[in-house]
Amino acid sequence: MPRPRPFDDAFGAELDRLFRWRRDVRHFQATSLPENMVAELVATASRAPSVGYSQPWRFVRVADAARRARIHAIFSACNAEALAAQPAERAALYARLKLSGLAEAPEHLAVFVDGEAPTGGGLGRATMPETLAFSAVLAIHTLWLAAAARGVGLGWVSILDPVAVAQALEVPAGWRLVAYLCLGYPVEPAETPELERCGWESRIAPSDLMLQR
Amino acid sequence: MPRPRPFDDAFGAELDRLFRWRRDVRHFQATSLPENMVAELVATASRAPSVGYSQPWRFVRVADAARRARIHAIFSACNAEALAAQPAERAALYARLKLSGLAEAPEHLAVFVDGEAPTGGGLGRATMPETLAFSAVLAIHTLWLAAAARGVGLGWVSILDPVAVAQALEVPAGWRLVAYLCLGYPVEPAETPELERCGWESRIAPSDLMLQR
Repeated sequence: MPRPRPFDDAFGAELDRLFRWRRDVRHFQATSLPENMVAELVATASRAPSVGYSQPWRFVRVADAARRARIHAIFSACNAEALAAQPAERAALYARLKLSGLAEAPEHLAVFVDGEAPTGGGLGRATMPETLAFSAVLAIHTLWLAAAARGVGLGWVSILDPVAVAQALEVPAGWRLVAYLCLGYPVEPAETPELERCGWESRIAPSDLMLQR
Repeated sequence: MPRPRPFDDAFGAELDRLFRWRRDVRHFQATSLPENMVAELVATASRAPSVGYSQPWRFVRVADAARRARIHAIFSACNAEALAAQPAERAALYARLKLSGLAEAPEHLAVFVDGEAPTGGGLGRATMPETLAFSAVLAIHTLWLAAAARGVGLGWVSILDPVAVAQALEVPAGWRLVAYLCLGYPVEPAETPELERCGWESRIAPSDLMLQR
């Protein structure tokens, strides 16, 4: 028989609200986060699942203004290329989208996967080596939810040349960029994705996402 | 100024407990899940973030006994190869590990990424195309936490040939396997990872995971 439920219905309802509150945020207040918050969030993120218990996630808190400016320049160049590659009918809308909060966010956190980490002994990734990077993604999502529970927004910036970012941050050899994150208090929390509100894309019905075999 | 916090401290503490309760489960009770639970979990998972709002996750509920047997056979072959590749000093320990609950779990759910999904218009993935598969990982983690909040355990099986799994489940062309999940009530919930309890790997201190730049 199932055991007594470990979490009650009220928690389940709040968790569901968290999943909706947790948006990709690109509009941040300038207000700083409490000094220890990033370290706390990294500690929580390190409780994420990982393939073979490899824990391959690595975090770089980017505080230096010159490094942040280099990251922002990499974003601007990549975003200009992406705009130029848009089909004509979407270019004007693309140009209006705000796709990062790099200029305003009080905290920048780059997340890498250590491709040479010996932890885990390779368990579980012989046939699907991408599960190592997936483990870092699980840590990012854990951090994202833990931040949201504190009222802190997160924006995942992927319009970046990952090799250029690794060079700009002088990380150890073998670290590959998984995500560059902006963190801060959101200007205006929202329960629908910004790309839905802007008319870029609409929501797929869950029933269209599942097959039975 | 920061707005009033959207979630209270009690919720934050329960969320932290959820992150610890959520283990990779390989020991399942045979008890069935309520009939609508998998569909509910898929609906919650579809609230996950995705690159460019692409929502590229696809779910296959595997109910047919013959298909499950084929998946189990693929796992057994891949796991035998992985055992043969272990260094001598780890082979005996590896052989003792229980690495899947495929035989007992009442529900099997395969998760794919649709590499040809037109949704999202390519936004955010020109320089980091792996973010499409990462989006499916975010959906899996959302599903994992939503299951845990209901007292349901999940085990992520990655010791599989992804192409053979796609063939066994006859999914549309362009779908790539991200994870094969077992779901059910855990035999014995635990707050430390099974691979830690078995002596396979130990925990890395969070302070060893972060650099400052």
